[in-house]
Amino acid sequence: MIQNVAVIGAGSWGTALASVLAKNGHQVTLWVRDAQLADEVNQTHRNQKYLPEATLPVNIVATSSLEKAVAGKPVVLLAVPSHAMRQVCQSMAAYLDPEVLLLHATKGFELESLKRMSEVIAEELSPQITSRLAVLTGPSHAEEVVCEQPTTVVVSSESEESMLRAQDLLMNQNFRVYTNPDLVGAEIAGALKNIIALGAGMSDGLGYGDNAKAALLTRGLAEISRLGIKLGAMPLTFAGLAGVGDLIVTCTSKHSRNWRAGYMLGQGKRLDEVLEQMGMVVEGVRTTHAAYALARREQVDMPITQVLYGILFEGKTARQGVEELMGRGKTFEMSYLNPEADRS
Amino acid sequence: MIQNVAVIGAGSWGTALASVLAKNGHQVTLWVRDAQLADEVNQTHRNQKYLPEATLPVNIVATSSLEKAVAGKPVVLLAVPSHAMRQVCQSMAAYLDPEVLLLHATKGFELESLKRMSEVIAEELSPQITSRLAVLTGPSHAEEVVCEQPTTVVVSSESEESMLRAQDLLMNQNFRVYTNPDLVGAEIAGALKNIIALGAGMSDGLGYGDNAKAALLTRGLAEISRLGIKLGAMPLTFAGLAGVGDLIVTCTSKHSRNWRAGYMLGQGKRLDEVLEQMGMVVEGVRTTHAAYALARREQVDMPITQVLYGILFEGKTARQGVEELMGRGKTFEMSYLNPEADRS
Repeated sequence: MIQNVAVIGAGSWGTALASVLAKNGHQVTLWVRDAQLADEVNQTHRNQKYLPEATLPVNIVATSSLEKAVAGKPVVLLAVPSHAMRQVCQSMAAYLDPEVLLLHATKGFELESLKRMSEVIAEELSPQITSRLAVLTGPSHAEEVVCEQPTTVVVSSESEESMLRAQDLLMNQNFRVYTNPDLVGAEIAGALKNIIALGAGMSDGLGYGDNAKAALLTRGLAEISRLGIKLGAMPLTFAGLAGVGDLIVTCTSKHSRNWRAGYMLGQGKRLDEVLEQMGMVVEGVRTTHAAYALARREQVDMPITQVLYGILFEGKTARQGVEELMGRGKTFEMSYLNPEADRS
Repeated sequence: MIQNVAVIGAGSWGTALASVLAKNGHQVTLWVRDAQLADEVNQTHRNQKYLPEATLPVNIVATSSLEKAVAGKPVVLLAVPSHAMRQVCQSMAAYLDPEVLLLHATKGFELESLKRMSEVIAEELSPQITSRLAVLTGPSHAEEVVCEQPTTVVVSSESEESMLRAQDLLMNQNFRVYTNPDLVGAEIAGALKNIIALGAGMSDGLGYGDNAKAALLTRGLAEISRLGIKLGAMPLTFAGLAGVGDLIVTCTSKHSRNWRAGYMLGQGKRLDEVLEQMGMVVEGVRTTHAAYALARREQVDMPITQVLYGILFEGKTARQGVEELMGRGKTFEMSYLNPEADRS
């Protein structure tokens, strides 16, 4: 069924998702914060700033008015940066249809509160809307999605109806949508993978090999799972597209900012030098801070996160960090299921 | 405690494990099938044929006599090719100490019988020995292990004592050993990952991007898990070092023979051309055959394996195969836990 869909946020990921929806035949209203960029999208059918390669379908209409974007729309998809989520929800709350199907595709925590995106949304919108919220995540570079390269994603919600409706809206021959009821796990896996990408870059920067990187990814996944389970996630979500899948795409792509920052740290550069050279935010650095705080609050053992925190913020060298990880006690592989089995 | 250990098989992996054990202070007898190569190892402390870069510790002594290698030894580690396992067990059975701790580090099935290595071993040796068997697996290029690059592996056994003894024997500052009681899962994950490596190469050869490759690895892992669970494995083993870890190391390394074979197939070459050009066995091709047969026997849905089988043995093109995979019905991500949830 053809729907009127609002996509909130015209970064690379919001623009790519608007494009998928429009190619599926839906009428898409794309909210662009900057009025000048909105005009440009409408005139040129391009988003030169965030997704320069792509020509956008003509059934995407941009607006810089949140009211115009969401009022009366049966489906709204949020794709704003994590730090903007709360404010955007506050601004659009009054205009949302109470029956709206709300989706979000934003990875990350609110850093001050350590809350997941769906928790932030639930604090700003009505329970009627947020009880049916669905999250979209998985291994998906926007640049590939918009070129119709084969891509798989996962949609999670506590509402089965929401998952199935989101799947129907988005799925097509090049964009395969799986469902998974574990919303908490999907959000946590997507948010925390950046830490491991930073670590993978560091391992490469230190000159270590494929064994070390595979170890880091696998054990990183184990500790993310440990934290996720403590926060209510299902263990197997981390073995799926939101976990392993996204981890692979983030950690093996040299285009990843997190990997590049880690690589420079591995080569012995200090964090301030790295950030200066990158000239932009490195998400994994902020996420390491958040995960470190969450691990302390929840009393969950996260050795890789702790070592990364020490390297980023406490002057430890990358090599000292690796030695510390390799020198730990003897452990059971799935100690998050059975902590007593540790021999350390 | 210092032990006398026999390592059976002087391929790259057996030689690397002998080196780890010897550096840990154990007295190692390395069984080398070829008497000339055994002499060469003893004279030069190198294994020029299978691990040319490495200088081996002097407490490795090679022999081409199986009797001399295993008689009276408290620990025996098998690292022979999968097709040689049955015969080697038959040949050494009479010489083994009934109290021996037996380990194996061989990935693959016996192709004719579709049996796991531990099943083959159990048919040839006494229950007293095989009930305590442990398997060693995980993401570990031998070339990196022998250079003391950081590496993690996992040891699995139905006997907790065997796991802990194996962990104590092998673990050191560069070689970190985890334990996991799921022997069946550890063997299946290690054997089947080669199929996915072939698929990953094919995706790259077709010119697809990081999203497609991450999808293939993740959904490949899901179907390997599905088969493994049917055969008695624990789901989470596939999220650990034997599963995800080994998959990453195999699928992201361009040195992998399976990846290279897949890449050529993706570029449109026929299997016979690829095999001729490679000039050697491609394990993933043989494993695809075995997994296809196992999936049929166990009535497990393995769409990626089925598509690869069609490409390898039934003249399907790689592009047709991908279209078939992307065009499947709408599915629940963890349908191996809840098959009814499939919408197809």
